[in-house]
Amino acid sequence: MLEGVRLVTDALNSGAACTLILYAPEQLQSTEAGQHLLTQLSSDNSALMATPQVIAAATETVHPQGVVALAHYPEVAPEKPGIVLIIDRVQDPGNVGTLLRSAEAVGVATVLCVRGTVDLYSPKVVRAAMGAHFRVALEQDLIWDSLADHLMLVDHTYAADADATMPYYAADWRQPSALIIGNETQGLGDEARTYATKLISIPMQGSADSLNAAVAGSIVLFEALRQRSLGRS
Amino acid sequence: MLEGVRLVTDALNSGAACTLILYAPEQLQSTEAGQHLLTQLSSDNSALMATPQVIAAATETVHPQGVVALAHYPEVAPEKPGIVLIIDRVQDPGNVGTLLRSAEAVGVATVLCVRGTVDLYSPKVVRAAMGAHFRVALEQDLIWDSLADHLMLVDHTYAADADATMPYYAADWRQPSALIIGNETQGLGDEARTYATKLISIPMQGSADSLNAAVAGSIVLFEALRQRSLGRS
Repeated sequence: MLEGVRLVTDALNSGAACTLILYAPEQLQSTEAGQHLLTQLSSDNSALMATPQVIAAATETVHPQGVVALAHYPEVAPEKPGIVLIIDRVQDPGNVGTLLRSAEAVGVATVLCVRGTVDLYSPKVVRAAMGAHFRVALEQDLIWDSLADHLMLVDHTYAADADATMPYYAADWRQPSALIIGNETQGLGDEARTYATKLISIPMQGSADSLNAAVAGSIVLFEALRQRSLGRS
Repeated sequence: MLEGVRLVTDALNSGAACTLILYAPEQLQSTEAGQHLLTQLSSDNSALMATPQVIAAATETVHPQGVVALAHYPEVAPEKPGIVLIIDRVQDPGNVGTLLRSAEAVGVATVLCVRGTVDLYSPKVVRAAMGAHFRVALEQDLIWDSLADHLMLVDHTYAADADATMPYYAADWRQPSALIIGNETQGLGDEARTYATKLISIPMQGSADSLNAAVAGSIVLFEALRQRSLGRS
């Protein structure tokens, strides 16, 4: 389920198969992006005009933007690794959505979610991911055994662990690599530790001892992109 | 107002002046951290036992953890710059709290918030900042003219702008520097552009065109810390 002008526009522009789109023209007309979408929808057979009340009843957001769509789960072919992001039982939908948004921005090849991670297609994850679902290869509900094939393709599997002594920027991210981000409060699980070839941490100053999981993952992913853009420092 | 075991523990350990603490012993006893706090509170004259119902009425959270405290605004002396973080009209309390948490983690000297930024002491900011309020020098409701004195002390004032051509990692963050993070949807304002000496961006892959403001700010701050730890790459 896709709520809002930006997500529905993203879906249409990515060629996603929307089975039903409900839109309230008077609401879409209030913004420039909404007006563009309105023009697209007027020639779309799956789009039906509706009242703002109907849109509000169909959506979860407090202030719906006048459009909601139902789409098939997008199927994006994985890129050749690259960087593989493994999300291991992260619970907060905002964190997972933010990680997907960052994964897209750094050109991650595929995102693999271990069983116990929040549903990637829940509306809060979809909203926070800002359209990454249409452009990044995603798999979820995976057990660790089934990840082994993916991990065969990378040179190193790094796992973020607050107690690790190796700084994240000491890793050579120009090689095909996987990055495991663990649960917000419990950190890495035993299986993640088994599959990881190296543990990395984000060095911090003062008495700070942790970061938001989405921020921590994004910092490491963007360091990987920095190295891959520059050659390694 | 400080809600929850971690924040109240942080406050007491930082020597913050709590004028009133309400706690429900039966709730605190359910976790190890809660038990430690309970021991501290039993000898604290400003701490009063209360029922879970009273705690619930005094807090904003859906599932309060059995403790809430009122504290004076902490006064933390700014460090010598360093890195100065300027938050310019960022609206989302979660984003601002996350920026404060990252600012603490990289050892930012002081955080200056321009008028129009969400209130730094609103409960959602305080919760997301995970105790940074007690350990980082903060000023808010500032007009740009009053920032000029701070900016005199740094060699460069960088401002994050999606259209800038200079990558954030091309800046030399070993020098005393300021970083401006702008509003989530409008980006940098005119005054921020006037005071900035260089605009920087975070290069991205594919069709991604933006990042969450807290994530973007954190990525730049941790690059600054990386350079300052290593010498510049």
